[in-house]
Amino acid sequence: MSGAPERVTVYEVGPRDGLQNIDTPLEVELKVRFIEALAEAGLPAVEAGAFVSPRSVPQMADTDRVYAQLRPRPGVRYPALVPNERGLEAALAAGVREIAVFTAASETFNRRNINASIAESIERFRPVVRRARDAALGVRGYVSTCFGCPYEGRVDPARVRDVTRALFDLGVEEVSLGDTIGVAVPTQVDAVLDLLLPEFDIGRLALHFHDTRGTALANIVQALRHGARTFDASAGGLGGCPYAPGATGNVATEDVVYLLHGIGFETGVDLDRLVDASLLVEQRLGAPLPSRVLRARLAERQRARAAPPR
Amino acid sequence: MSGAPERVTVYEVGPRDGLQNIDTPLEVELKVRFIEALAEAGLPAVEAGAFVSPRSVPQMADTDRVYAQLRPRPGVRYPALVPNERGLEAALAAGVREIAVFTAASETFNRRNINASIAESIERFRPVVRRARDAALGVRGYVSTCFGCPYEGRVDPARVRDVTRALFDLGVEEVSLGDTIGVAVPTQVDAVLDLLLPEFDIGRLALHFHDTRGTALANIVQALRHGARTFDASAGGLGGCPYAPGATGNVATEDVVYLLHGIGFETGVDLDRLVDASLLVEQRLGAPLPSRVLRARLAERQRARAAPPR
Repeated sequence: MSGAPERVTVYEVGPRDGLQNIDTPLEVELKVRFIEALAEAGLPAVEAGAFVSPRSVPQMADTDRVYAQLRPRPGVRYPALVPNERGLEAALAAGVREIAVFTAASETFNRRNINASIAESIERFRPVVRRARDAALGVRGYVSTCFGCPYEGRVDPARVRDVTRALFDLGVEEVSLGDTIGVAVPTQVDAVLDLLLPEFDIGRLALHFHDTRGTALANIVQALRHGARTFDASAGGLGGCPYAPGATGNVATEDVVYLLHGIGFETGVDLDRLVDASLLVEQRLGAPLPSRVLRARLAERQRARAAPPR
Repeated sequence: MSGAPERVTVYEVGPRDGLQNIDTPLEVELKVRFIEALAEAGLPAVEAGAFVSPRSVPQMADTDRVYAQLRPRPGVRYPALVPNERGLEAALAAGVREIAVFTAASETFNRRNINASIAESIERFRPVVRRARDAALGVRGYVSTCFGCPYEGRVDPARVRDVTRALFDLGVEEVSLGDTIGVAVPTQVDAVLDLLLPEFDIGRLALHFHDTRGTALANIVQALRHGARTFDASAGGLGGCPYAPGATGNVATEDVVYLLHGIGFETGVDLDRLVDASLLVEQRLGAPLPSRVLRARLAERQRARAAPPR
């Protein structure tokens, strides 16, 4: 490598995508501490909550209180997930500056997840995105099941392209392509990006991998070859998808940062401070989080304490 | 892909490298069932034990009895680890047809692991390899800490090349390059293979990755680009290295096979039978093994039982 290392944006989804899959909701104060610790560790975007039905997702019921306590931090974005106009109103009332909307590349998944066809969900988001843009909010779009669906199996990359196009046509600024059930392998990353990149700017695409089958980092390396520079990750490997049974395994932010730094990219993230942020949640949950780098780093710390340098 | 898929050899180390790190030694009968289940799943090489000091590695003390009960199986190799001439004699007496010797790329690690300099360990293996070859045994050489050492940190690829050369000069047929503490990233795979491949045939090199930091599959994809076609793996992700504290995480055979099949290689391995083999050990140990694909496959089975197809 010559010159300064190239920057990769790690988009933290732990406080939203991670915590929404935890049985016991965290206290507002702990959520805020967690989110701010992630920002202090250097993460430039931390998805901090979701303005969704408290009946469907009780873990996110306190999102307005989380935003009320979050201190703005220069250079750090705190997006929130928003499912509809009512959610947008709540987000605007809470002072949110960036929202995320979501649909899927698989009809069956979308139907079971949000009880709408893909086309219906796009229509549902049309006024949401228009009003958000009018209010000068940033808008991200998620596409679930881009590499496989728990009900339909393999997903045709052409479906991913069509949904991505529909989201950009709505006025979304960035589309995050999700491997919701963690089945993707690097050749699928090639297939999807080879189809999408002639039409869309890679700078407006993020990749959201799950490590359910251990392939997430291999997929990230493959996406980097295509020029992708934004990757979603969840601190400690928190969470998964409640509508895809068995699909634990958002790729862990620690693992992504370790890989990126190791192969010569810059993220701005301090790995040790990130580990400390994850520990806030791990200690509360009382069970080890799945991040491999988190576990390795804790073992290293224990060793250093057992045999301090002389 | 056109034509028949290309073959990759998955070299199974679970019954040796995996089980030697288990607190409670397994019964001989269960070990034999495990090894034969792995062979029946289609693994072409299963390292079945080690003729080492029972004081140092009590888990391997029954290796002679394991070999006495193992039924030969056409097309399946059952290599054994051998540390010295005494071990070779025991291996020959047990009817072993293939052995493995081992050293390291880091002096400090080798000293702490086997109480010898790298040069001394090479000299120690000289008569072992000569006698083994005279008896028409296959001989593999392991090089530990090729990508990082728990005591020295980064390891110079030139050290890996020198040790590899010394092992080939001894008469070893295949050298397995190990990331003993699981720190490697794909750019390091490039650095090591770029240095070694002008001198050595890639067909005689195996890669042995640990998934301690989640990078193993990314490293395998990178090594495949260099033409590597033999990868070590441990069923269920059993084991690690007892001399590298915190270094759990042999890459899981299930995860490697899932990746390889997904990107279009053939291994001859039936993933479901492999899962069943790992379950023999998991059920005995009473704790989940770390393989991500194993866990995902078990969740899929549970789902299929909960909602049988109509």
